[in-house]
Amino acid sequence: MNEQAEKLTRNHSPELDAILGQSFPVLDDGFIRVVDYMGTDASIVQAARVSYGRGTKKRHEDRGLIRYLIRHHHTTPFEMCEIKLHVRVPMDTWRQWIRHRTANVNEYSTRYSVAINAMYSTAPDEWRVQATSNRQGSEGFLDHDTGRELSQKEKEFHQLSRKLYEERLERGVAREQARKDLPLCTYTEAYWKIDLHNLLNFLRLRMEGHAQYEIRQYATIIGREIVSRWVPLTWEAFQDYIFNSHTFSELEGQIIRALTLGDKEQARALADREGWLKYKDGKLRFHIERFEFEQKLQTLGIEFPW
Amino acid sequence: MNEQAEKLTRNHSPELDAILGQSFPVLDDGFIRVVDYMGTDASIVQAARVSYGRGTKKRHEDRGLIRYLIRHHHTTPFEMCEIKLHVRVPMDTWRQWIRHRTANVNEYSTRYSVAINAMYSTAPDEWRVQATSNRQGSEGFLDHDTGRELSQKEKEFHQLSRKLYEERLERGVAREQARKDLPLCTYTEAYWKIDLHNLLNFLRLRMEGHAQYEIRQYATIIGREIVSRWVPLTWEAFQDYIFNSHTFSELEGQIIRALTLGDKEQARALADREGWLKYKDGKLRFHIERFEFEQKLQTLGIEFPW
Amino acid sequence: MNEQAEKLTRNHSPELDAILGQSFPVLDDGFIRVVDYMGTDASIVQAARVSYGRGTKKRHEDRGLIRYLIRHHHTTPFEMCEIKLHVRVPMDTWRQWIRHRTANVNEYSTRYSVAINAMYSTAPDEWRVQATSNRQGSEGFLDHDTGRELSQKEKEFHQLSRKLYEERLERGVAREQARKDLPLCTYTEAYWKIDLHNLLNFLRLRMEGHAQYEIRQYATIIGREIVSRWVPLTWEAFQDYIFNSHTFSELEGQIIRALTLGDKEQARALADREGWLKYKDGKLRFHIERFEFEQKLQTLGIEFPW
Amino acid sequence: MNEQAEKLTRNHSPELDAILGQSFPVLDDGFIRVVDYMGTDASIVQAARVSYGRGTKKRHEDRGLIRYLIRHHHTTPFEMCEIKLHVRVPMDTWRQWIRHRTANVNEYSTRYSVAINAMYSTAPDEWRVQATSNRQGSEGFLDHDTGRELSQKEKEFHQLSRKLYEERLERGVAREQARKDLPLCTYTEAYWKIDLHNLLNFLRLRMEGHAQYEIRQYATIIGREIVSRWVPLTWEAFQDYIFNSHTFSELEGQIIRALTLGDKEQARALADREGWLKYKDGKLRFHIERFEFEQKLQTLGIEFPW
Repeated sequence: MNEQAEKLTRNHSPELDAILGQSFPVLDDGFIRVVDYMGTDASIVQAARVSYGRGTKKRHEDRGLIRYLIRHHHTTPFEMCEIKLHVRVPMDTWRQWIRHRTANVNEYSTRYSVAINAMYSTAPDEWRVQATSNRQGSEGFLDHDTGRELSQKEKEFHQLSRKLYEERLERGVAREQARKDLPLCTYTEAYWKIDLHNLLNFLRLRMEGHAQYEIRQYATIIGREIVSRWVPLTWEAFQDYIFNSHTFSELEGQIIRALTLGDKEQARALADREGWLKYKDGKLRFHIERFEFEQKLQTLGIEFPW
Repeated sequence: MNEQAEKLTRNHSPELDAILGQSFPVLDDGFIRVVDYMGTDASIVQAARVSYGRGTKKRHEDRGLIRYLIRHHHTTPFEMCEIKLHVRVPMDTWRQWIRHRTANVNEYSTRYSVAINAMYSTAPDEWRVQATSNRQGSEGFLDHDTGRELSQKEKEFHQLSRKLYEERLERGVAREQARKDLPLCTYTEAYWKIDLHNLLNFLRLRMEGHAQYEIRQYATIIGREIVSRWVPLTWEAFQDYIFNSHTFSELEGQIIRALTLGDKEQARALADREGWLKYKDGKLRFHIERFEFEQKLQTLGIEFPW
Repeated sequence: MNEQAEKLTRNHSPELDAILGQSFPVLDDGFIRVVDYMGTDASIVQAARVSYGRGTKKRHEDRGLIRYLIRHHHTTPFEMCEIKLHVRVPMDTWRQWIRHRTANVNEYSTRYSVAINAMYSTAPDEWRVQATSNRQGSEGFLDHDTGRELSQKEKEFHQLSRKLYEERLERGVAREQARKDLPLCTYTEAYWKIDLHNLLNFLRLRMEGHAQYEIRQYATIIGREIVSRWVPLTWEAFQDYIFNSHTFSELEGQIIRALTLGDKEQARALADREGWLKYKDGKLRFHIERFEFEQKLQTLGIEFPW
Repeated sequence: MNEQAEKLTRNHSPELDAILGQSFPVLDDGFIRVVDYMGTDASIVQAARVSYGRGTKKRHEDRGLIRYLIRHHHTTPFEMCEIKLHVRVPMDTWRQWIRHRTANVNEYSTRYSVAINAMYSTAPDEWRVQATSNRQGSEGFLDHDTGRELSQKEKEFHQLSRKLYEERLERGVAREQARKDLPLCTYTEAYWKIDLHNLLNFLRLRMEGHAQYEIRQYATIIGREIVSRWVPLTWEAFQDYIFNSHTFSELEGQIIRALTLGDKEQARALADREGWLKYKDGKLRFHIERFEFEQKLQTLGIEFPW
């Protein structure tokens, strides 16, 4: 590494520079802005190559190297990039967000300042129905009339809760106590800084279909609008090898193999041995591991062998 | 280290075992319970001594060693102890709690289950007044009549918000969405697991006078009822050398020195040179660094030299 | 969660208790011992269920729940278990080990004490040949005669380096400086404490074929002898869904689908579109992404479509 | 926070930009270079102020705010700054360095590449004597003649160890194994990235007199040459309120108070009550807590009251 004499300037991404400070709207009153960042795809390559020492620089082409690193869980070079976002987000979404512990955070303080006068509201057509298949999800929407009624009540409740909050402040109640009955969907703001490796983890979990709708909107903006501009090679490799990848257990791998041999009987025998193919009244009984495997087959467009 | 042949049993603390699972009430409907733990004062000593190798075991007495480690910020041996608590706490207090990132957490899910039907209520004499000296604190209480009125309104609001929540559930709204307007003071529950080093950091910050009243109640129970039983030598050293310690800046140290020489003039000269002693209309003007130094002197019972 | 009244005792694993303190030998003079631990499979289940609140306890069977958690990257319940090991390991292996940052460590200090008088020696048949396919690996062994010569020289060098070290100490050189020329393979000892989630990450990376031989020996002992006894359900799920799983990129998934349809032409077309099937002099040229995909097919016993 | 419309450019520090990439020599063949960074003093102020919301921007002057944050352990705003260094350092120094876990690291790989051909050598006048007062330190130097002899032997040993290493490589031994007998003082290189809060912790511990000489040289360069340019206000506050601060235990505070009252008898009584003043043959016996308090008094220039 004979770079020690060279004069440097900071790596920068012209595409990201072009949107620095720009607000991407999310939900009805939220946003995401990039405030600062450090590193680019080139910084990842540079960090990976410190391992190889002199003379090996021409060996790998950048894109190939980044794909290799992603594929092999060589995560440390991605930690060399950092991004700092300014976000405005409902507190109940923030509660999920903040569970990602490997980030740096400064949040708007409702001890120090009066709470932001904005709550996340639901349009009549946006009331989601409790999922039955998945205890922690939703599926479909309530009918418009019910939705309108719920939205109207929500609006009244928001006004009432703000009034209660402001009354307390007027009476002299400390802000740290007056806030206690604000709704969970009150907007807050924060600076959130995270390295790229941990950001990709966040995106993998929060862009995914099981993540709650609200946080998925934020994650999707971060991925598609921000990471894609900032580190395009990493973003492509992340999609190919992580986000859109397919993982099969040991058993599932064996079933797949049987299918490539056209041996559906063998595939069924493997599944049956694990108790996946119990019938009741002529119908296959629900088995969660089989069910999730079927979902993977469906995504791939492969027919079930049973 | 010739222990490798010995048969072991886990270190345990009889005093902590005696209260394992027992619920310590906090606030009006919260609690803290120790669910599990690992290590004792002896584990700290053992970890510290791995550094010294064979033959040095008799050198230090345990209490002296633990005090030495605390004094010198040798924090790694304290990481060898872990504790797992089951807590019930209002969500807005939990928001502060969860900012300590070096812990392991599993929280009650209001996506998966119906929210706990309990909110943190304020008694008429517990409404705190906004502090003027400290923008993010409180001082004193509102009068009883105002308090009674506020408590009555709080009660009605809690009933209303629960009704709204339950109506939504009845209409079929997904739990993850129905919860959005619950008050911040709705109780949640969690398992919270942390190592002793990071727990002491939590206690240093949250038992302290500037921490919000509610989290201070939790921190104080953890310190006085739990840590004191679990690792009594560490608890004593923590109080002596951290929690009740006094820290002076370089300048403050010089002023203290002048005071021990009885040289108040020199003390004033040192302060003046930093701009601490500006007068206006014959009165000392507020200077935050001087003010905080005065608070430290006051705690120690030392008279101000100006 | 109405457990708050119940009296508890710590969860424990009789199978792990039976080997507590017992030394598992590794390499020529290393070992691993379990010194302490916290939690069991039951603690993971308990932590996961705090999410579900009351009444849902009978819903899932423990094994199924643990497999579900592993499959869906619900990692936090696994953080509720901790294990503390006492290890003796060559310093160059320890250099790799310590790169896993999410652990607690106390290491033998060669500033404080005389360095352990043991170095990792290589038997004549254990000299590994530099791999050509993989720049950072090894493949096969040197012939016995060369090995004997190298082992003899190694032995002499170890004696010489220890002599140099001890001479320095006799002359009065500070231990912290005298140690500077000890070989990297000098044994050290440490307490290493880590939660189960992070331990599984360590095992996934270090039990794997690309990890260096030495650390793989340690990881394998930890997995097969320790984790398997401590949390048998987790160990099984880890093997099925993580360690022995197969992950395919988006493209690879499409090729697999073509193979299950018996459509090799489509499989080749997909690969060709990515530039995987360039020929030179009638032979397929090396392409690392195709090569790694072929390795996965080979593991599964699926024939290449080209 | 009405900044969401504004167009941004990244905060930068002209003083740090001026030395970006420049190599600061350390020890006989080591160096430190700043490769990249993110944030400045202004970013800390900005992050702190997100707490205060709109309208409070003029309230605090930047220097005052940074000093306040440092004084009150409000550490999160300092996490908003990151720095990435390229360092060349002996492996045994790196072993201490890497123990700071809250950093991102990519190190030169001696599995992948031939080890750097440089070892840290000791000049004849630099052989340090083992301290007697402090088991893990050094004090003073060996005489020149002994030093010359030791340096000569060190040189020969370095040549021998390199020869052994290269012989192995020539015989075809895998790099990952051939390296096992390199001396601990072999130079390595790494990128090391850390946020400012954690960097200040590193500096507090490693610039301090008890840190080993070698790592102290690196830490001092980082502090005085790099941090001082990068975030001058933070550097000043760090020195005043952390690095050069004085911390007294509860008891020590009481003794200080007695001294400011000129009451040495009371000071002695307080010390005696703790067992600090045991005499043997007319001489004060060693007591480590008294001894360390005396050191603090000495630093301050305060006479002992006994």
